[in-house]
Amino acid sequence: MPNPFFQPVSGFELPRFAGIPTFMRLPHVPLDDPRLAEVEIGLIGVPWDSGTTNRPGPRHGPRALRDASTMIRAENGATGVRPYEMVNCADLGDVAPNPADIADTMDRITSFYCKVLDAGIMPLTAGGDHLTSLPVLRAIAAEGPVGMVHFDSHTDLYHSYFGGTMYTHGTPFRRAVEEGLLEPERVVQIGIRGTAYDSEDRDFATSVGIRVIPIEEFHARGVDQVMAEAREIVGDGPTYVSYDIDFIDPAFAPGTGTPEVGGPNSYQALQVVRALRGLNVVAADMVEVSPPFDLGGATSYLGTSVMFELLCVMAEAISDPMKR
Amino acid sequence: MPNPFFQPVSGFELPRFAGIPTFMRLPHVPLDDPRLAEVEIGLIGVPWDSGTTNRPGPRHGPRALRDASTMIRAENGATGVRPYEMVNCADLGDVAPNPADIADTMDRITSFYCKVLDAGIMPLTAGGDHLTSLPVLRAIAAEGPVGMVHFDSHTDLYHSYFGGTMYTHGTPFRRAVEEGLLEPERVVQIGIRGTAYDSEDRDFATSVGIRVIPIEEFHARGVDQVMAEAREIVGDGPTYVSYDIDFIDPAFAPGTGTPEVGGPNSYQALQVVRALRGLNVVAADMVEVSPPFDLGGATSYLGTSVMFELLCVMAEAISDPMKR
Amino acid sequence: MPNPFFQPVSGFELPRFAGIPTFMRLPHVPLDDPRLAEVEIGLIGVPWDSGTTNRPGPRHGPRALRDASTMIRAENGATGVRPYEMVNCADLGDVAPNPADIADTMDRITSFYCKVLDAGIMPLTAGGDHLTSLPVLRAIAAEGPVGMVHFDSHTDLYHSYFGGTMYTHGTPFRRAVEEGLLEPERVVQIGIRGTAYDSEDRDFATSVGIRVIPIEEFHARGVDQVMAEAREIVGDGPTYVSYDIDFIDPAFAPGTGTPEVGGPNSYQALQVVRALRGLNVVAADMVEVSPPFDLGGATSYLGTSVMFELLCVMAEAISDPMKR
Amino acid sequence: MPNPFFQPVSGFELPRFAGIPTFMRLPHVPLDDPRLAEVEIGLIGVPWDSGTTNRPGPRHGPRALRDASTMIRAENGATGVRPYEMVNCADLGDVAPNPADIADTMDRITSFYCKVLDAGIMPLTAGGDHLTSLPVLRAIAAEGPVGMVHFDSHTDLYHSYFGGTMYTHGTPFRRAVEEGLLEPERVVQIGIRGTAYDSEDRDFATSVGIRVIPIEEFHARGVDQVMAEAREIVGDGPTYVSYDIDFIDPAFAPGTGTPEVGGPNSYQALQVVRALRGLNVVAADMVEVSPPFDLGGATSYLGTSVMFELLCVMAEAISDPMKR
Amino acid sequence: MPNPFFQPVSGFELPRFAGIPTFMRLPHVPLDDPRLAEVEIGLIGVPWDSGTTNRPGPRHGPRALRDASTMIRAENGATGVRPYEMVNCADLGDVAPNPADIADTMDRITSFYCKVLDAGIMPLTAGGDHLTSLPVLRAIAAEGPVGMVHFDSHTDLYHSYFGGTMYTHGTPFRRAVEEGLLEPERVVQIGIRGTAYDSEDRDFATSVGIRVIPIEEFHARGVDQVMAEAREIVGDGPTYVSYDIDFIDPAFAPGTGTPEVGGPNSYQALQVVRALRGLNVVAADMVEVSPPFDLGGATSYLGTSVMFELLCVMAEAISDPMKR
Amino acid sequence: MPNPFFQPVSGFELPRFAGIPTFMRLPHVPLDDPRLAEVEIGLIGVPWDSGTTNRPGPRHGPRALRDASTMIRAENGATGVRPYEMVNCADLGDVAPNPADIADTMDRITSFYCKVLDAGIMPLTAGGDHLTSLPVLRAIAAEGPVGMVHFDSHTDLYHSYFGGTMYTHGTPFRRAVEEGLLEPERVVQIGIRGTAYDSEDRDFATSVGIRVIPIEEFHARGVDQVMAEAREIVGDGPTYVSYDIDFIDPAFAPGTGTPEVGGPNSYQALQVVRALRGLNVVAADMVEVSPPFDLGGATSYLGTSVMFELLCVMAEAISDPMKR
Repeated sequence: MPNPFFQPVSGFELPRFAGIPTFMRLPHVPLDDPRLAEVEIGLIGVPWDSGTTNRPGPRHGPRALRDASTMIRAENGATGVRPYEMVNCADLGDVAPNPADIADTMDRITSFYCKVLDAGIMPLTAGGDHLTSLPVLRAIAAEGPVGMVHFDSHTDLYHSYFGGTMYTHGTPFRRAVEEGLLEPERVVQIGIRGTAYDSEDRDFATSVGIRVIPIEEFHARGVDQVMAEAREIVGDGPTYVSYDIDFIDPAFAPGTGTPEVGGPNSYQALQVVRALRGLNVVAADMVEVSPPFDLGGATSYLGTSVMFELLCVMAEAISDPMKR
Repeated sequence: MPNPFFQPVSGFELPRFAGIPTFMRLPHVPLDDPRLAEVEIGLIGVPWDSGTTNRPGPRHGPRALRDASTMIRAENGATGVRPYEMVNCADLGDVAPNPADIADTMDRITSFYCKVLDAGIMPLTAGGDHLTSLPVLRAIAAEGPVGMVHFDSHTDLYHSYFGGTMYTHGTPFRRAVEEGLLEPERVVQIGIRGTAYDSEDRDFATSVGIRVIPIEEFHARGVDQVMAEAREIVGDGPTYVSYDIDFIDPAFAPGTGTPEVGGPNSYQALQVVRALRGLNVVAADMVEVSPPFDLGGATSYLGTSVMFELLCVMAEAISDPMKR
Repeated sequence: MPNPFFQPVSGFELPRFAGIPTFMRLPHVPLDDPRLAEVEIGLIGVPWDSGTTNRPGPRHGPRALRDASTMIRAENGATGVRPYEMVNCADLGDVAPNPADIADTMDRITSFYCKVLDAGIMPLTAGGDHLTSLPVLRAIAAEGPVGMVHFDSHTDLYHSYFGGTMYTHGTPFRRAVEEGLLEPERVVQIGIRGTAYDSEDRDFATSVGIRVIPIEEFHARGVDQVMAEAREIVGDGPTYVSYDIDFIDPAFAPGTGTPEVGGPNSYQALQVVRALRGLNVVAADMVEVSPPFDLGGATSYLGTSVMFELLCVMAEAISDPMKR
Repeated sequence: MPNPFFQPVSGFELPRFAGIPTFMRLPHVPLDDPRLAEVEIGLIGVPWDSGTTNRPGPRHGPRALRDASTMIRAENGATGVRPYEMVNCADLGDVAPNPADIADTMDRITSFYCKVLDAGIMPLTAGGDHLTSLPVLRAIAAEGPVGMVHFDSHTDLYHSYFGGTMYTHGTPFRRAVEEGLLEPERVVQIGIRGTAYDSEDRDFATSVGIRVIPIEEFHARGVDQVMAEAREIVGDGPTYVSYDIDFIDPAFAPGTGTPEVGGPNSYQALQVVRALRGLNVVAADMVEVSPPFDLGGATSYLGTSVMFELLCVMAEAISDPMKR
Repeated sequence: MPNPFFQPVSGFELPRFAGIPTFMRLPHVPLDDPRLAEVEIGLIGVPWDSGTTNRPGPRHGPRALRDASTMIRAENGATGVRPYEMVNCADLGDVAPNPADIADTMDRITSFYCKVLDAGIMPLTAGGDHLTSLPVLRAIAAEGPVGMVHFDSHTDLYHSYFGGTMYTHGTPFRRAVEEGLLEPERVVQIGIRGTAYDSEDRDFATSVGIRVIPIEEFHARGVDQVMAEAREIVGDGPTYVSYDIDFIDPAFAPGTGTPEVGGPNSYQALQVVRALRGLNVVAADMVEVSPPFDLGGATSYLGTSVMFELLCVMAEAISDPMKR
Repeated sequence: MPNPFFQPVSGFELPRFAGIPTFMRLPHVPLDDPRLAEVEIGLIGVPWDSGTTNRPGPRHGPRALRDASTMIRAENGATGVRPYEMVNCADLGDVAPNPADIADTMDRITSFYCKVLDAGIMPLTAGGDHLTSLPVLRAIAAEGPVGMVHFDSHTDLYHSYFGGTMYTHGTPFRRAVEEGLLEPERVVQIGIRGTAYDSEDRDFATSVGIRVIPIEEFHARGVDQVMAEAREIVGDGPTYVSYDIDFIDPAFAPGTGTPEVGGPNSYQALQVVRALRGLNVVAADMVEVSPPFDLGGATSYLGTSVMFELLCVMAEAISDPMKR
């Protein structure tokens, strides 16, 4: 029976353009709120892009995603899932970044997520650039490495940039493997494409056992086959889902800093998440939404639509773990 | 032999960016014009969005559609149809709405369309939000209910909004069924998707026999199969075609108030209309084009391209009714 | 001594692009919140534009104004006023409008404001189109008519539109005078300009004693003289301030539905509010900000800057009524 | 008594966003229309920019100006003039340009304007780039040279471009002087500014007696003094008014191909036209409005506002020539 | 072994948003540069759109394409080709057009390309409107006609416009056939669609043996089959590749003057170029990118991505001609 | 006599939309170019915004300023100065920043400017955010502190942000004073406005003798008086000019991260620079131009127009130091 406190405001009561925009029109429950203990899935913003090597902007992502999320209703039209009747969801607010200090911000993020996890809450993150995933994973994988389904046009497995800079949005998963946060053989990267500096990233993937599915293979085999393989790779173990909006073709998601043409369409963008139903998903993120490059807001809206699909998968994972 | 008066101005004579923009560069023939009696298909604007529960803007639709329509030439490149050589077409101007009075505007629309029908003219409407279809149907179905092929991402079959408001752009077809304007078993809704408040609308569809084809089924079966079924549903009877621009994926048609991601692409958007050839189409509309959200004008241009396809189907229905 | 609960979040702690956007980064205190009684100035959104006769959009105003308001810091750079250390301010949320029913929405607004006033809170409104001011005034003037300083390019004193429609954004102050909500001789309208249908509105103003200061006079006499006269007109009595963003030239405030060229610049836009210091201001509004026409967000930012100036004037009026 | 046929449609009857957009919502009277003989002022579009040496776009000017002009009402708010009650005004449509042939297009324009003048109609032109003024002047000055008040940030008096090309938007008035269309001593150019290639243009002005008033002088002396001098220069003789939208500062009029910063504001933009009242104005143009660079439409709206001021001056010149 | 001088600047050294933008971050080698002789592929801008009959803008194409091209890295992610290690590539700068003289500009272009060819350089052109291809072909086919693979939504085979104007962007290939620059039976046009004036262009194609593949056939048969036929048509002979950006659906490439809906997506846009590997490509162009209509820059980025694919095909054609 | 190598390309030869965009169309002379020794004024880009605490984007500034600068011609229209005939000017390219490491980037900048100064070149910088000025001043003031005329809406004199972060775009001049790079009594800050966190920055200014001229004083006294005082403050000593684009009102310069309404217009923006003629200017910068927030490019164009004014002042300072 749904907890009335944790229900989103209906558009039938308050039109969707109205009201202070929280994620999905859910209640705002800061970490010091007495009802925090009741929350099961927490939506968290990480407004941060200091790791961006190219065009900045994802620091504005959480606010734009919250705004667009007021367009999302309570029921998943494709799967019929009504997540808010299954688990208590809330907007936990934003991590306070320090835009001028990368190391400080990473510590702040990890610390925030440790509190969230300590409270027994499964986090769904709205970034932020892709470096965000590293400090989040440091909290998630505190007890041991996790698997990962990673949707992206880039591997983000580079060693370093600009003559030795180790922490950028092009390196998070290299660091995560090095730090033992990911089980490489339980990691699959889907949609990789675009021009490349060289093959250093993919060589690293091969060397540690990460499976890279380039976009040519994705288009040739189709969503069903690719996702079946992805499910096999991550298996039953705890799995992180990292969704870079630039996985999607820039005609559908123009608002991102490093777009790559030739990607999936918006329907495939949703299908790949629905194909995660039943996995042991322990946390997820949506990153690299960059509102300054998102004339018209299409990217935020698609990003938040994908977030709702992730939320549904997570709600099912919590409410019916046996089905996994 | 084409009537020279009713021919669109050629871009070879007057460049397409020039001239006062009427629909398809056709002559403007107001209802009091002596040549009204010669018109066979009338293009009509309904600049109205007072039924919009979400983001407004379709009141600006007719002007933007007229502007974009000056890019459309005289021959259908796919089917070879040259409608202006088959029937006399004209721009009948706009219905004058009362933006601050919904009931008054509905009366004005119905009255306008009754005059059009009395003159023996088949109307092709440029809305306007989807509530527009209701007062139009009141004129169209004055003699009896009609069937409908309805392209949309929403059913628009809700009972009411905001605690009992009966006339919004989310309720027109509920009202139309209640008022006996539509034969429910001859109604098919194609492309339904997105998150839902609840299933009240689809339950109603089921209860009265309306066939709802969700987007998942559309993508899985393909245009040909889906449209074959749609043709069977409406059969030979008089059929209204209602085309909400949000049927199309927002990457192709961003300029609309309630977009839903994961829809058809622009080629499919045209294909579904071409698949209506030979049906007993008695009127059609293109609604929910919202220029304030249409940066760059892509939506108006796609909307007007679809209108031309509808026009070709209607011209064939008139000029060669035996082939239906 | 400032109440720590009612302080806006500092940009030194949480960067200004971060966090859920409430007005001025103040706490959200809904009408049923136990701390409502402590609030002295309440910022309220009225996301509504059903009275708009021209280009719609102000229903999106409150959200955009909240978003832009996170750029505003705690101290007035020109006057040195630090309002949050003088009075308790809070974001009271939005009135829930019914976009498809004007009469219903007006009732909802008046009812909301009556509760606010009953709680002893002075309201600062973010509209909404200008019809918003009418139901607000019905609450404000419940005990007797008030004076008004009205910044606008239009008088909004027309009798009716579209053949007799009485409630539109072009008629609120005609109705307010008729209903006895305004003392006409204590009303001054500043900045009136643009082309006119006819002089019916200004004739009415003259007939009831409203002082209209057209833009030509404003530019010729300057802010100081004009505002001195305005202060004299409203005197010591309770005074409403209504600020239509289209008072300002559209180069500075493009995001509005009925712009008129040749208006004041942004500095004058602030100066006129600072000139209200010491008046007996009992409530104020900022209306007609239309985000769909506000590419780049300049209008929302200027609108929220003006709101902060209004807030400072109101805070002084409360904290030091003797100085008035 | 106003001729009802030539009245613009009121926004009280048909909202201003509705209807097929003609200039000022006036009737469309093509050159072959039987009522042409009744027209006294004709608004004409010249959608042409083949003379543009920099960023193109003014070919889209007439349509955008027509669209924006539907926002203009019937009475001048500053002067009280109601032009449509003084003279018969109509939209004469567009000259059909040949975008790929400059000489051909110039002939088409001159020919069109000769017909207009032969019908006794005073033309008000919506360009088009500034080369438009040359073929118009060829018609206007057929009987003898005219004076000119020229608002612009450029003199457009260059000899040639690109190694000898004589007909561009930087040369029209050099040609006009050479062809004897202008009386140089009755020509004043106001607002000249920006960086320069060299002083060849201003040297030519000096050599033939054209008065150039640079923007520094304009700002230092003010509108009243500058316009008094301008009136003296053109005196009582027949006078052409050429208004390049780039006269106005680009913050107010961004949509133009060669903007120059530091110009007049929108109020001054209107004042300078009002200062022409009583002159013997025989024709006028508004040129260089470039919609592709006019995000948001501010330039078209300001351009059309200036056109209405020009129209009022022309209407007074016709209806009350004694007052000149 | 790659020549270090001709290597693009890596984004690892200089971030991709930094630096003066040359094509692909290659060195700028003007025609009078001593290192011109070393260049094997020259990227050339032709900033020209005077042949445009509809919406202008492609004169801004080369600069926008250069800007976007700084996002392209050194390795083709799909084919693995690293062109700069195979052949010396350079940015040869822009041809200086005369925007106000079509004939003069065509001569300037042909002259520029003759010098490039004389230096033994294979040219890759960034237009410019499609008339650009004609003067380029005059240089390319100086020794004899070539075949052509032409991606476009229009045939550009019309005889003339506006009553006899022979040189527009709708006529280049009609002229090229007439002038003996193309072997018609070795010409294939792919993607043709949209409404048509009449069938004059396609009748001409048929009469001379040009193969036109309309979009319906493209979508029905798929990229592989269509491109196999295209390869057969052009065979082993010298082949020009002309790529009009409006080949691609406007959702992916909005920034063009005459878009036609219902086209290929961005992945197909790349695939068709990759299918040219091994052909005897002697030159290529990317035309009709129109930045004023490219809000957000998606078109320039996709255009430059296609140019990189063309560059890879050309590099392979040079470095390994046996494989062709 | 002007050195032909260092002349900008004329728009009469190569249209201004054509060509690879260097600053002012000057030759690109990298630091290792043999002609570096001949350069007297070097225009340098610093594409960097890692010190931005609010909305990022200035890393894209140099490219956008270069692009817009191709609109600037060779002669100052107001002062008649032709700088390229007085001194050799060149585009020295960009400093390569490390977007993910503030300290590293500051070192790179200082090192680059030391080389420039060693070559006897006076630098004119295009930022970048305002932290850019600090590492530049470290090079400029290597031999001793300098005075500064600082145009801005913020003092940038804060001690630290986010709990102790010392290097942000809000602190550069605090650091510069602490490091002995500026003589505080020879520093004047003009245009300060907007809301404030507190008065810590202005208290510091007072304590060290920096003169702060708030915008209210600027508007009340006028450009002439304010600049006369500024000239007195800096006197004859070596003077740095730092021009933050947010000095200008956001209607004229929207493209910046922390706009403040109520500022100077574009004419005043130029006037204040012209008032610096004859001062001992040793270097200057234009910072905080943020292209992602600059829809339409107005800010870049105004920024580059101001840069040209700065360049003219610097050219006069070099070529005629006696006149200072």
